[in-house]
Amino acid sequence: MARTAPSLLLYADARSADMLYFGRFNAPDPFIALGIGRKKIAVLNALEFGRARKDSGFDVVLPLEPWLKKARETHPGAKVGIAEVIALLARHYRQKAFVVPENFPAGLCDRLRALGLTLTPVVTLFPERELKTREEIAAIREGNRCSALGIAAAEKILRESKIKAGKLVHRGAVLTSERLKTAIEIACLEAGALSIDTIAAGGDQACDPHERGHGPLRAGQLIIVDVFPRVTATGYHGDMTRTFLKGRASEAQHNLVAAVHTAQLAALSVVRAGVNGRHVHQQCLDVFARHGYETKHTPRGSVGFFHGTGHGLGLDVHELPRMSGAVDYILKKGSVVTVEPGLYYPGLGGCRIEDVVQVTDGKPKMLSSAPYEWELR
Amino acid sequence: MARTAPSLLLYADARSADMLYFGRFNAPDPFIALGIGRKKIAVLNALEFGRARKDSGFDVVLPLEPWLKKARETHPGAKVGIAEVIALLARHYRQKAFVVPENFPAGLCDRLRALGLTLTPVVTLFPERELKTREEIAAIREGNRCSALGIAAAEKILRESKIKAGKLVHRGAVLTSERLKTAIEIACLEAGALSIDTIAAGGDQACDPHERGHGPLRAGQLIIVDVFPRVTATGYHGDMTRTFLKGRASEAQHNLVAAVHTAQLAALSVVRAGVNGRHVHQQCLDVFARHGYETKHTPRGSVGFFHGTGHGLGLDVHELPRMSGAVDYILKKGSVVTVEPGLYYPGLGGCRIEDVVQVTDGKPKMLSSAPYEWELR
Repeated sequence: MARTAPSLLLYADARSADMLYFGRFNAPDPFIALGIGRKKIAVLNALEFGRARKDSGFDVVLPLEPWLKKARETHPGAKVGIAEVIALLARHYRQKAFVVPENFPAGLCDRLRALGLTLTPVVTLFPERELKTREEIAAIREGNRCSALGIAAAEKILRESKIKAGKLVHRGAVLTSERLKTAIEIACLEAGALSIDTIAAGGDQACDPHERGHGPLRAGQLIIVDVFPRVTATGYHGDMTRTFLKGRASEAQHNLVAAVHTAQLAALSVVRAGVNGRHVHQQCLDVFARHGYETKHTPRGSVGFFHGTGHGLGLDVHELPRMSGAVDYILKKGSVVTVEPGLYYPGLGGCRIEDVVQVTDGKPKMLSSAPYEWELR
Repeated sequence: MARTAPSLLLYADARSADMLYFGRFNAPDPFIALGIGRKKIAVLNALEFGRARKDSGFDVVLPLEPWLKKARETHPGAKVGIAEVIALLARHYRQKAFVVPENFPAGLCDRLRALGLTLTPVVTLFPERELKTREEIAAIREGNRCSALGIAAAEKILRESKIKAGKLVHRGAVLTSERLKTAIEIACLEAGALSIDTIAAGGDQACDPHERGHGPLRAGQLIIVDVFPRVTATGYHGDMTRTFLKGRASEAQHNLVAAVHTAQLAALSVVRAGVNGRHVHQQCLDVFARHGYETKHTPRGSVGFFHGTGHGLGLDVHELPRMSGAVDYILKKGSVVTVEPGLYYPGLGGCRIEDVVQVTDGKPKMLSSAPYEWELR
């Protein structure tokens, strides 16, 4: 009999994109899921059982407790846990070998192998996750609608702020990165998405691309606002970045922002199915080289353009494909990628501009939309 | 030479409580961390390197890129990744064996073993995580302050709501679970915490303890509000639950809530160092049995009291210790646990009341505080 696909085993909570993709069930605690033939099976405790039966993508939902009891009867006197339950299930479904995700728990993996199962971790459990369906495209578009609302909330506050002795003052109080992030996150929440690790960082802080920002924001400094919320209903993300400046930008700041925007357009102009992600990245490198922006790695950190040009976006904020100088990756029709060049020079500041597109056979389709005006007087 | 502790290896992002505990560094992407002797070493890419050097608990922060380059030189022509970098680091630090967390990625574990390293997964990598320091207690108290603000926001809206044809109406619009959750999450955000998977579920929905709630809320139904936010600055959580009812409760609902509250007090009265968590759980079972509340597991789901009485709380929402009927667990001085009995009967509704305490040699110390008034006329 021809086996169409190897059997799958997962043990994770819904923070695992693979688990969410597989079963479309948002569980806060890890649980067992099996893929046998075309059948998707979940084993859930009493806390989750009813909800999963009503509302999940699993074909079969089994209650954990009786299986635990059976496992205890099978191994009398021994400490019995998830591994023994999985071994029982494997026997029940006559399976000896499973493919597991790369991040399957190593401890559980060892115990299952000791119980006689063959587990094979694979880096990409669901290659089809990269190719988005129409529903997934809509969910990512919705994520970026939330991103844009968050960015708009930040822009509004920056516009409304007054400049007093170099600091920004909004509604009578000094405007901080924390206040800006809270306003962004509230806008996302009200739109139905959760924005975690929101970035609203100014000046030299923004030169560490993952620094979230803290303390007072100042006039005349570049402020990077990066919002990648997760839509609560679907689990899919948006991911957008804009860079603002309140007051008057210097010529050097104008040039920096213009170079980043030019690099983004150059990258976007070559994104299409069949193109190597490295080639997209190269467009940004070329623009920056042409404009004289050097990238340097020093013992104290890096300056210039020292991250990838983009990454896949979906149930994970960072997923396949990748567009960077470090790897070859041929873009596929139906992939969704960010395009987000940036430049970072302490003293001058940082700038990143990020949008999200769907890869097609022709021009990429924009899945994000927000204005690019950045100098807010 | 006496070895005081085995060397540690972690590869995770800051969603891993162990990683956050070890290095106090909030990284969105997985990175390598080593514990060798008393030295904590992190290997981070250019995106995180600068921030980690400025603000983390690592003694040594190494840049990933040159180590990757070295690994490529060591394995010319081969596909080189994190495993090869870790193998190089192990050689550099003259280590052949590492203890790794239970949830270390199985795929990476296999590759490292193939490269000659000995990895031993352990279920509890940092047993000391269970015993909270004064700073951690303060951080959990802060988490519960945020929980209480969220619950207060929900209560305020319920109090302000009008009853129209059985439905709740707030500021002219039907009050839904979604609106209540958003209000709770905004209150948490403004207090500096992120509330994920907030529960505001009414009626039969609340009988699935992990159902978040959706759609219109109704007068006369028990509404479970469970808020377990993560304080952004520290990563520690609060976890509190209150059950409300807008309008007039039936006698059966009064009895249900009274039984749950009595069970909580009974459990709290025996929580202390040296006591078995199973014994704490038994107090709730006894109260419910005395009041005639049966627990039943049916093929369609469970009714009655079918979850544990409490769990440890800290960097994870669910961590050690546990207080349930399924395991023996002796409570230790300095542990922090939730105490959260509940009863769930479709038709009548669900009720759960949850607070957080610190285990001491005497009476437990309350780390959460919110009123218990629940019938909102």
